[in-house]
Amino acid sequence: MVKYMKRCHDRHEKVVEFRQPEELNKLINFELKDTPEDLATVIDYCRETLNYCVKTGHPRFFNQLYGGMDIVGLCGQWLSATANTSMYTYEVAPIFVLMERAVLRHMGQLVGFSDGDGIFAPGGSLSNMYAISLARHKKFPTSKMEGLFSLPRMAILTSKHSHYSFKKGAYFMGFGLNNVVMINCDAKGRMLASDLENQIIHLQSQGIAPILVNATSGTTVFGAFDPLDEIADICQKYDLWLHVDAAWGGAIILSAEKRHLMKGMHRIDSISWNPHKFMGCPFQCSAFLTKKKGLLEECHGIPASYLFQKDKMTYDISYDTGNKSIQCGRHVDIMKLWLMWKAKGDQGFTKKLHHAYEISNYLTEKIRNRDGFELVVEPVYVSICFWYIPTAIRNLSDGDVKRRKLSQVAPQIKAGMTKRGSMLVGYQPMDDKVNFFRMIILNSATTFDDMDFILDEIESLGERIEFVQNGFHNP
Amino acid sequence: MVKYMKRCHDRHEKVVEFRQPEELNKLINFELKDTPEDLATVIDYCRETLNYCVKTGHPRFFNQLYGGMDIVGLCGQWLSATANTSMYTYEVAPIFVLMERAVLRHMGQLVGFSDGDGIFAPGGSLSNMYAISLARHKKFPTSKMEGLFSLPRMAILTSKHSHYSFKKGAYFMGFGLNNVVMINCDAKGRMLASDLENQIIHLQSQGIAPILVNATSGTTVFGAFDPLDEIADICQKYDLWLHVDAAWGGAIILSAEKRHLMKGMHRIDSISWNPHKFMGCPFQCSAFLTKKKGLLEECHGIPASYLFQKDKMTYDISYDTGNKSIQCGRHVDIMKLWLMWKAKGDQGFTKKLHHAYEISNYLTEKIRNRDGFELVVEPVYVSICFWYIPTAIRNLSDGDVKRRKLSQVAPQIKAGMTKRGSMLVGYQPMDDKVNFFRMIILNSATTFDDMDFILDEIESLGERIEFVQNGFHNP
Ligand SMILES: Cc1ncc(COP(=O)(O)O)c(C=O)c1O
Ligand SMILES: Cc1ncc(COP(=O)(O)O)c(C=O)c1O
Repeated sequence: MVKYMKRCHDRHEKVVEFRQPEELNKLINFELKDTPEDLATVIDYCRETLNYCVKTGHPRFFNQLYGGMDIVGLCGQWLSATANTSMYTYEVAPIFVLMERAVLRHMGQLVGFSDGDGIFAPGGSLSNMYAISLARHKKFPTSKMEGLFSLPRMAILTSKHSHYSFKKGAYFMGFGLNNVVMINCDAKGRMLASDLENQIIHLQSQGIAPILVNATSGTTVFGAFDPLDEIADICQKYDLWLHVDAAWGGAIILSAEKRHLMKGMHRIDSISWNPHKFMGCPFQCSAFLTKKKGLLEECHGIPASYLFQKDKMTYDISYDTGNKSIQCGRHVDIMKLWLMWKAKGDQGFTKKLHHAYEISNYLTEKIRNRDGFELVVEPVYVSICFWYIPTAIRNLSDGDVKRRKLSQVAPQIKAGMTKRGSMLVGYQPMDDKVNFFRMIILNSATTFDDMDFILDEIESLGERIEFVQNGFHNP
Repeated sequence: MVKYMKRCHDRHEKVVEFRQPEELNKLINFELKDTPEDLATVIDYCRETLNYCVKTGHPRFFNQLYGGMDIVGLCGQWLSATANTSMYTYEVAPIFVLMERAVLRHMGQLVGFSDGDGIFAPGGSLSNMYAISLARHKKFPTSKMEGLFSLPRMAILTSKHSHYSFKKGAYFMGFGLNNVVMINCDAKGRMLASDLENQIIHLQSQGIAPILVNATSGTTVFGAFDPLDEIADICQKYDLWLHVDAAWGGAIILSAEKRHLMKGMHRIDSISWNPHKFMGCPFQCSAFLTKKKGLLEECHGIPASYLFQKDKMTYDISYDTGNKSIQCGRHVDIMKLWLMWKAKGDQGFTKKLHHAYEISNYLTEKIRNRDGFELVVEPVYVSICFWYIPTAIRNLSDGDVKRRKLSQVAPQIKAGMTKRGSMLVGYQPMDDKVNFFRMIILNSATTFDDMDFILDEIESLGERIEFVQNGFHNP
């Protein structure tokens, strides 16, 4: 494992030794059997796993909103794996429960909640669902007992650029996809507060009850920040729960310089903030925080006599966390984060953020000034969206033909870089914008040179593309 | 960590060095700050964490439905922590996606699904919610778009002894607690099929649509197994989704001798099975399996262009798992289980199970024959429920006075054992039965001697109890 960790930091190593599923199936015998395999084979499997997994800690892995390798965090993760327990009671997780309290308190203070509450969830999606759950409970407390059947139709409002977990939450929690109202954004991907208000008025005129507005701080693709103060004004006016999905962008709270992007955050009701994303905490670690003390338990509590014995004589049962949760057993995601925070202090994360901004600014400048590269949007965070436009189509006039060809570029370059294993960068279309790259800068080991490298690599792969009418060849 | 692992297997070591929250808060400085702490202090924190956490791997930890310490599983967990990735796409988790497929296929075959589907979820509670989600989607496919608002009232049927996650799921998913119908059980804790049918008829006569019947294989407290064949007959008759919550009991599928407890399982629609419980896989690991191929994706899929690019040229995107899930990022829970299964084969788990049955039978015999001990119910699995009745109240005639006193016994003994750190055993009341102990036998390191030890310890603590009218003293 230590060797693997070194390899992750070696630029001569590939980011991934990519194999097709069928090939990998031949290389490794995945099948399980009745009989055991010997220890040597099992150890081989471990080695092979590290050979063929994606090196998310590599300085040229830019594919997702997580990555890097924090040694202290990793030790924390190993340690809590060894302790092998569940968060639901103080009885079996005394020290982890206290760590969770300390971290939630600290994060809450940073957001500006004087006395809030919270819980760690298995991912930002579920954190966002916690928000929906609280908002519903607050507006229609009878829903806990009676469900949604006899209640008015409800709606969740979130921007077109927001994360799809609001949709997942909407049907999973019984609202239905049609009751997620997608608010328009400006060209930079920020929610238009004016459209939000229009939609609220429209819903109310139809007898539909909006229950929650989600504002995103750090959208998944553009890294945009919705204007919290404006949105808070509207939520206040219409008495709506204001949640902020800061799964990706929450880290900027730790920077006095950048915090203005979330101006107004002390006015919100709840927030999702994923330390496993920008902050580099080992996957998975997601905090849900709310200003409303006691509501999590009121909303999600079910007496379970076998776990939460009221007559426990051992300790004060208000330390048990199970009744705040929709889970029963809950993985210890807190140790790794707490330990990292101890080792870094707020300052360590601030430094990491400022480093990432420096690299991002450098990359942005390069893209702006280099032939064939074009920014999709001016970045405000560490997500850089851009096109590469190969020479062959560079001089085409704007229009459908160029769009169709341009949309073939990123997938082909992506396939090329994956095969080479030289780096990993994601791509996607968005609104009327055809496939473009999204670079995510968060690994502290990433340097200016890496930025030059990726632009060169994209150009070199992009120039080999053979465009075809219907479909296209691999470079 | 290696030292800790040794300590976990040393019977001279306490199971827990218990401290009150206030004490622990004094011993360890949990607060986070702006500035970093030095490495030596951080290492101290690691040491302290292992000092004060509960040794769930200790052979005298019987407190929960998980425990033990499987070295191969733990290595798998460390390794996947090091690989630090998410399960949602083959792109970033190639090898783990294939492991998940292999394990789901194998588990499905064991259950008797010829060609099913499945996913690993963060816990059995969410696995059970997956079942509710599929059942709802199958009965009312419009709910995905429209929600529950214009649909008839729906009900979930599950036994009184079943796990509370059906309640959590019910309100979280919009049904409401009142729409969970609790079916009566016989004295051994098994669902009464006759009552199930009566309730279905009653609901239908009221215009309420039952959508899912949950049968439990291995109830949380008694370890009872609901009669699957009888229940399947009823579900077939009324066209209802039959889910089996085998989170705790699923392991018996691996024993030809015990499998009859789940006779009829090939007829069910879905099952939750937690390898982190009996099978001793490091926490957390929970499988959800369904017979209906494609339904998970049909029900939970949302196109997210930034993750699941349809024009990926790198590989066949049907390997991406994200659209089956209600999560976005998903922790790699599969590596540890896959590796354990490789190292043990089915046989290894069967052996573990038979060992646990041997110990359980031994304990049951002892309880049956020892003065002052009384079984609450004849065990069929490795959960042994019993009372200790101290001499002082042993000769009281049955009635309220005795019940009130007896209910004080377990909490006091529990407080005593926690303070001593000698062992950990859970207790709870159930139906009309006052507080009793629930011994969970699953650690392969546990021996007959440990059983003698715990009975002696319970007796020794139990004899010191001072009963009081209202409230009671600590021993
Ligand atoms: C803005 C935003 N919110 C929420 C999520 C979901 O987080 P998770 O993957 O932890 O469920 C993401 C993930 O990409 C995100 O970008
Ligand atoms: C029968 C049963 N089902 C489900 C669960 C929930 O499993 P988890 O804690 O993984 O959510 C439990 C947990 O004790 C259980 O006993």
